[in-house]
Amino acid sequence: MTNSPAPNQTCPIRDVLDRIGDAWSLLVMFELANGPCHFNALRRVIGTISQRMLAVTLRHLERDGLVAREVLPLSPPRVKYTLTPLGASLIERLIPLRDWALDHQPSVHAARLDYDARAA
Amino acid sequence: MTNSPAPNQTCPIRDVLDRIGDAWSLLVMFELANGPCHFNALRRVIGTISQRMLAVTLRHLERDGLVAREVLPLSPPRVKYTLTPLGASLIERLIPLRDWALDHQPSVHAARLDYDARAA
Repeated sequence: MTNSPAPNQTCPIRDVLDRIGDAWSLLVMFELANGPCHFNALRRVIGTISQRMLAVTLRHLERDGLVAREVLPLSPPRVKYTLTPLGASLIERLIPLRDWALDHQPSVHAARLDYDARAA
Repeated sequence: MTNSPAPNQTCPIRDVLDRIGDAWSLLVMFELANGPCHFNALRRVIGTISQRMLAVTLRHLERDGLVAREVLPLSPPRVKYTLTPLGASLIERLIPLRDWALDHQPSVHAARLDYDARAA
């Protein structure tokens, strides 16, 4: 792909953290940072996510070792998701970034308006 | 778009930090964290980036208020790029994330192999 760095230049953040480029994954991980959660509860809390997209997102997070999936032997069976220690250590680094984004949202928006006004 | 959260659910990280989803932007910002840099020097250091892609990346970063552009009155004119205080404060939060990615790259790769082996 011409738009991405060549492999030897690949940023480790992008190599490892595909999930950061994905808003659903971030929402799910921040939600699980509050504690383990069942599939249906996650879907209710996130609201606008489809059942399929939530399943795909959780599968990606599980594949990366960030989230653990446990099938509870209930009737009907329920599936519980938990941040792994690896996922918890990542969330620790993502929280300051989220807080930065919340704190500096007005500055970034103001910079964009200013730039566009100068460019017009 | 069906793949992204609805506006009221938008993650502030994604709203403000489009740049984080872009490997070139990360490489450029990490490079500028070492100090101001001329366009041509940035291009040399990053190596595989095209002139056009570097220009586009820098324009996005400038628009978001993360990078400042200064035309030096030389002959021929040269353009110097510097992280703004806003950009520097963002890099402070990105460095722990990059370090996490470097440190945990083997764990994430191992988790992926393990998951794929179980799924096969």
